Amino acid sequence: MRVAIVGATGAVGNELLRVLEQRHFPVRDLRALASARSVGSTVTFRGEAIAVREATPDAFDGVEIAFFSAGATRSRALVPAARAAGAVVIDNSSAFRMDPDVPLAVPEINLGPAERDRTLYSVPNCTAIILTMAIAPLRALGTIERLVVSTYQSASGGGAGMMRYLESDTQAYLTNGSGIDAGDRPDGLPPYAFNCFSHNTAIDDHGQNEEEAKVIAETRKILGQPNLRANVTCVRVPVLRAHCESVCIEFADAAPAVEAVRDVIQRAPGLRLVDDRAANQFPTTRSAANGDDVLVGRIRHDRDDPRVLNLWIAGDQLRKGAALNAVQIAEWRFSA
Amino acid sequence: MRVAIVGATGAVGNELLRVLEQRHFPVRDLRALASARSVGSTVTFRGEAIAVREATPDAFDGVEIAFFSAGATRSRALVPAARAAGAVVIDNSSAFRMDPDVPLAVPEINLGPAERDRTLYSVPNCTAIILTMAIAPLRALGTIERLVVSTYQSASGGGAGMMRYLESDTQAYLTNGSGIDAGDRPDGLPPYAFNCFSHNTAIDDHGQNEEEAKVIAETRKILGQPNLRANVTCVRVPVLRAHCESVCIEFADAAPAVEAVRDVIQRAPGLRLVDDRAANQFPTTRSAANGDDVLVGRIRHDRDDPRVLNLWIAGDQLRKGAALNAVQIAEWRFSA
Repeated sequence: MRVAIVGATGAVGNELLRVLEQRHFPVRDLRALASARSVGSTVTFRGEAIAVREATPDAFDGVEIAFFSAGATRSRALVPAARAAGAVVIDNSSAFRMDPDVPLAVPEINLGPAERDRTLYSVPNCTAIILTMAIAPLRALGTIERLVVSTYQSASGGGAGMMRYLESDTQAYLTNGSGIDAGDRPDGLPPYAFNCFSHNTAIDDHGQNEEEAKVIAETRKILGQPNLRANVTCVRVPVLRAHCESVCIEFADAAPAVEAVRDVIQRAPGLRLVDDRAANQFPTTRSAANGDDVLVGRIRHDRDDPRVLNLWIAGDQLRKGAALNAVQIAEWRFSA
Repeated sequence: MRVAIVGATGAVGNELLRVLEQRHFPVRDLRALASARSVGSTVTFRGEAIAVREATPDAFDGVEIAFFSAGATRSRALVPAARAAGAVVIDNSSAFRMDPDVPLAVPEINLGPAERDRTLYSVPNCTAIILTMAIAPLRALGTIERLVVSTYQSASGGGAGMMRYLESDTQAYLTNGSGIDAGDRPDGLPPYAFNCFSHNTAIDDHGQNEEEAKVIAETRKILGQPNLRANVTCVRVPVLRAHCESVCIEFADAAPAVEAVRDVIQRAPGLRLVDDRAANQFPTTRSAANGDDVLVGRIRHDRDDPRVLNLWIAGDQLRKGAALNAVQIAEWRFSA
């Protein structure tokens, strides 16, 4: 197939190249597109250097699948041109996620016959994908009414530049004890070495940041539960590429037994049970990083409320949280 | 006053020396006590090197105040001898915290005439101190019925050795891309460079770890609310010395207005309001580190439940979470 990647030089674009290669996606021609300032650079696919071309409306000629991961503004500007050229678009940005006509797709959860012939699919927010992967199968055990979630999000969610900032600030801190002077950063980020901070997106009138608003709205859409109550706090922690989430799930009735939850998690595609109480082995950022599965552990009941179940989960932000989920949508879309 | 510090060479012991010095505590004689293997080393107090002596039952002769920060086993073994020698003991360990006859003391919250003449005070768990500091003053605005808390805890809670492990594993990761081989660590800790992991304490039959059980039981005792419902998840994040906590507070009736909460936080001793939505300025690990205040921000209502208020808080684990709180107890105990 003729494949285009818009944003090929970014963190998700780079991961898309790796995932397409690792999963032997039938790529006949790969077009690496990016903004004008990346023209002249190359990306590597199957050991071959591919010159980066500028992402313009006429760059999609003959393309059958276009993966977008260059931000919402770029998607709004170029997705119509890609579709007009005949491409099926799989968009990692937030541009079309809440459009009722666009599937907000997690293949393990919500793709069926009604989504089969679409030409545009949105990949949800990374935190929402990892969250819904863990909780969707539990709906077989009871009705979920409310979530309370606190996140431990990685630098990769802010792109390759934020990952480099975490590494360089940490190295500077270990060397000089105070890190880089963050006062001059145009993005206004606080110091990142050995630091946790509230997610760096704008805060609305209710005190909620954009990331939290996305996680809540997208979780409802992915699960098809518009009335799900959700209390979400999004935090960046000094880790590189996987997100962890502390999840408190309130059921309508008594929460399912821990053994029943373990059983469902073990059988669910894309999940891995990591819940060894005796050995104190549970999901960690590092054990989820570079892997495809969402790890689930610390499965336990609230001692004061029989309706409440807790989980501690981890998933790679760049893989299941973005590139892997996008490629899985493409695999599903073009399977027989 | 004649002061002894048991565990003088540890992370909290070192901070006790700094706090006593910074607050001009009237120390006439300082006795630095530790285990036999630290004998021969020195600690520094007011620019003077003090030889470390072994902490034995007969080491408390003439001591008026003994600070203990050498773990519960050491406290159980030596606190009776210190009290028998006439010392007032302020114990940072968990040994006596849940003893109904021992005040679990946070001076801003729960010290009054009934606690005045005691000879033993327990310093609560660091996470419980930081949590109760932020929520205790809110009880003037309504009845708190339930807490849902997820923590972002620092290496310092595991002592100076864990801080060194985080630093050396992070340096190794930046150098070789994989960090130290954690497989051989006798403490069984996972990799710590750029990694979040569930708190490394034993898990009980209900799936709760010891840290979570402490936070819940101690929060109830500090606040004098034995029936407070609490759902707590304790997590270690790769930061050095301050803890952050994502706190969801359920009131019996409608949660107080955000402005009323801000007002109470601003007036409460030991708290600092850091809640600038427009500038995206909120508490961070690094802004709390080395400071005395517990920082409070992200004050907002749950959009789906009018009884629920969220906070994001940060406090230095070694200062208000341990050494500062201990010295404040001593100041209060010996004030007129």
